[in-house]
Amino acid sequence: MKLLPKKIPIKVGNKFIAVLNEKTAHALDLFAGDRISIVNDAKGKLTAILDITESKDVKDNQIGLYSETWNKLKVKHGDKIFVSIAEKPKSTLYIREKLNGKELSAEKIDAIINDVVNEDLSEIELTYFISAAYTKGMSDKETIALTKSIVKHGNRLVFKKNDIIADKHCIGGVPGNRTTMIVVPIVACAGIKVPKTSSRAITSPAGTADTMEVLANVQNDAKKLTQIVNKVGACITWGGGVDIAAADDKMIRVRHPLSLDPKGMLLASIMAKKYAVGAKYVLIDIPFGKEVKVKTQKQANDLKRDFEHIGSLLGIKVKVIITNGSQPIGRGIGPTLEAIDVLKVLKNEPEAPYDLRAKALMMAGVELEFTGKAKKGQGEKMATEILTSGKAYKKFMEIVEAQGAKHPKLIPGPLFFHVTSPREGVIKAFQTKRSRTSRASRALQKTKTRAFIFTKKSETAF
Amino acid sequence: MKLLPKKIPIKVGNKFIAVLNEKTAHALDLFAGDRISIVNDAKGKLTAILDITESKDVKDNQIGLYSETWNKLKVKHGDKIFVSIAEKPKSTLYIREKLNGKELSAEKIDAIINDVVNEDLSEIELTYFISAAYTKGMSDKETIALTKSIVKHGNRLVFKKNDIIADKHCIGGVPGNRTTMIVVPIVACAGIKVPKTSSRAITSPAGTADTMEVLANVQNDAKKLTQIVNKVGACITWGGGVDIAAADDKMIRVRHPLSLDPKGMLLASIMAKKYAVGAKYVLIDIPFGKEVKVKTQKQANDLKRDFEHIGSLLGIKVKVIITNGSQPIGRGIGPTLEAIDVLKVLKNEPEAPYDLRAKALMMAGVELEFTGKAKKGQGEKMATEILTSGKAYKKFMEIVEAQGAKHPKLIPGPLFFHVTSPREGVIKAFQTKRSRTSRASRALQKTKTRAFIFTKKSETAF
Repeated sequence: MKLLPKKIPIKVGNKFIAVLNEKTAHALDLFAGDRISIVNDAKGKLTAILDITESKDVKDNQIGLYSETWNKLKVKHGDKIFVSIAEKPKSTLYIREKLNGKELSAEKIDAIINDVVNEDLSEIELTYFISAAYTKGMSDKETIALTKSIVKHGNRLVFKKNDIIADKHCIGGVPGNRTTMIVVPIVACAGIKVPKTSSRAITSPAGTADTMEVLANVQNDAKKLTQIVNKVGACITWGGGVDIAAADDKMIRVRHPLSLDPKGMLLASIMAKKYAVGAKYVLIDIPFGKEVKVKTQKQANDLKRDFEHIGSLLGIKVKVIITNGSQPIGRGIGPTLEAIDVLKVLKNEPEAPYDLRAKALMMAGVELEFTGKAKKGQGEKMATEILTSGKAYKKFMEIVEAQGAKHPKLIPGPLFFHVTSPREGVIKAFQTKRSRTSRASRALQKTKTRAFIFTKKSETAF
Repeated sequence: MKLLPKKIPIKVGNKFIAVLNEKTAHALDLFAGDRISIVNDAKGKLTAILDITESKDVKDNQIGLYSETWNKLKVKHGDKIFVSIAEKPKSTLYIREKLNGKELSAEKIDAIINDVVNEDLSEIELTYFISAAYTKGMSDKETIALTKSIVKHGNRLVFKKNDIIADKHCIGGVPGNRTTMIVVPIVACAGIKVPKTSSRAITSPAGTADTMEVLANVQNDAKKLTQIVNKVGACITWGGGVDIAAADDKMIRVRHPLSLDPKGMLLASIMAKKYAVGAKYVLIDIPFGKEVKVKTQKQANDLKRDFEHIGSLLGIKVKVIITNGSQPIGRGIGPTLEAIDVLKVLKNEPEAPYDLRAKALMMAGVELEFTGKAKKGQGEKMATEILTSGKAYKKFMEIVEAQGAKHPKLIPGPLFFHVTSPREGVIKAFQTKRSRTSRASRALQKTKTRAFIFTKKSETAF
């Protein structure tokens, strides 16, 4: 059937979507979600996902085309568009197999990931893949295949052969906890390259990328990052800007609405990013506690084993530390206050949060020993020397300058409310999830959100 | 944050969707798929699902609103729109529980269905519900709860207390097989009311609704249907036009891309429609065969037990017959040729397809006995008398007239191709799924598609 194009002037994110009204779709025997082949005479052809509208916005002889589809087909008003049903990609069959509990081969997983990055799977189909992985679990083989496939279909960073490339990662959920911004410059001072990509806030009010963004630009592409790391030895940037794991980013979007974390996908998501930046040594911090992602010591131990196993299969040395996730690390919550905490530690100021300092030094120590830069048992000492000497602060500022320094005045937002204890006593527990309520206030101006913790566990409130 | 509205002039099917660009979404800490509360000063407020565009179609200070959202909020250009994050409906938690393998209470299932009909669940969330039902299965309790909830949130037909209301249903997949159009008028002649709603084609080239549509209008609302059934005793219409199972229709849309048929949902989908039209007697035909929906006798037997069990719990008498689904029933495939087959049987023409006639008479016989209109063992005889007397044809034409007769010339499309046997022999098997290839030809003009079967199983081809 020949149809007239109607432009729907909006981009929908590299997806090809077309819209027919109900009557036309019925006449063509097409259903919402069907894949259709759209031909604009000799000018172009593509496969799109069909939406159906109940109204007359798109008339009987029309086909609505969103910007991407319109542009790709080089449509002009008055062109004649030919539509027919298209085959589903084979990957939809594999997703069905996985829903039925079958283990998928590396080839089938790669076919799925290929279609994910090429936007050949609809949102519904991708959701079925996530839920299949969630309800049926993923084997080690599948996890490795997924990791490698994510890397294959994304950007990679390449450094010199003899470079020692290390990375670190924290399984989220603990507010504050900006160890990355301290650990990275310390280990970089020891000659380790750290191409660190971080996420923005997911469950807590600020991610490392958000906090770093207060001080420097965190939107850098792969080429720029390689230059920065080669020049100053490290970077701290937003992973979403690098496109090293485009498939993973697309899957996370569909995992988000129900906050689903299928274990194999969690492992693949983290390990793919480490693999793609060329890391040979990865330190993983798993905080556990009632109110963070990993609830129990047992869960943390299981995850530790999984990470070490997957790491060994990928040829990456993985070191996992299990830490206390029962309260925030540091005193500030929200990008600006967290940046202030980090700078206090790096500048060796006396009022620097002792827990953030101690955790960062411990982690840097582990990384220094693990990469062979420090002797066993001497890593934390070496890290402490680097920090107290002021070298770590200097290195951090080099990173900030290389990424584009902002030199901001670190002033949190003007609105505040003191939460005081109704009686004298000792703090026994923190409901860290409550810090998420500050998410609402970020609607005003994100970087200015704050919660400052005057009293922590075992300290006296009065 | 105050935003300026930008109209996106397209309806998306009663869903409320808003679009922000990436930068604005980031500043507001919002993700694609988030539920947002949108306020247009004193004029209106609603909850929408957020899309994020990577382009500048929607500018930094703008919010894109599709027609439904724009209209509901009574927006005028220049209005100021306030956006904040909204709570997820509780039903998303229940969907997560189901994904984790928990049995859901009737209240939780009803909360999900309520949000489905009110479009409060995003497509991704609904997909998770379908896949949870598919991978974790549904208990009888859940199936009953789902059935009742679908009925509760849709239209119902109400007839007089003493009316005998019967219905029939066929689990699809056999091309041809238009028994409904013969069984319904026969049993209606015996004084049984049959408010029959049918589907359009799903896997075969024509559904009953498509075939009936060749002869009469099949888009009738609940009020009109009640009038027709009270007047002539029966109707044969398209179920999608009656809105008796709106929630089910929405779920089917999401089940379609992967053709998922979670058993509990299949049962609920069918039984809800029977319950909603007030049927007290339901005859269900389960054809089995390698190339139809139900593959084996065992699967058919299991499904039979499930239907009878669910029926007894709903207070509906269910009779299940298991039939041969190994080849098409009748000779014509496609709406026009199937309508011709049906009319030949109803008019007692000598060249009427004997298998279609025999199957319809058998089924009508079962229904007549089962509702007490015929003595045990006498149903088929009574059905045959009604058919041969010409009363069934007369009744059928009354139904056609009541629904709005079209009096078409029954001429199939002009293009045809004879498939001849390369050698003499006896047909051993039919690849009925191949009849789906005619789906492509329907893109030209649906009702004119045709495949005419000259030779059937055990018949000689030469």
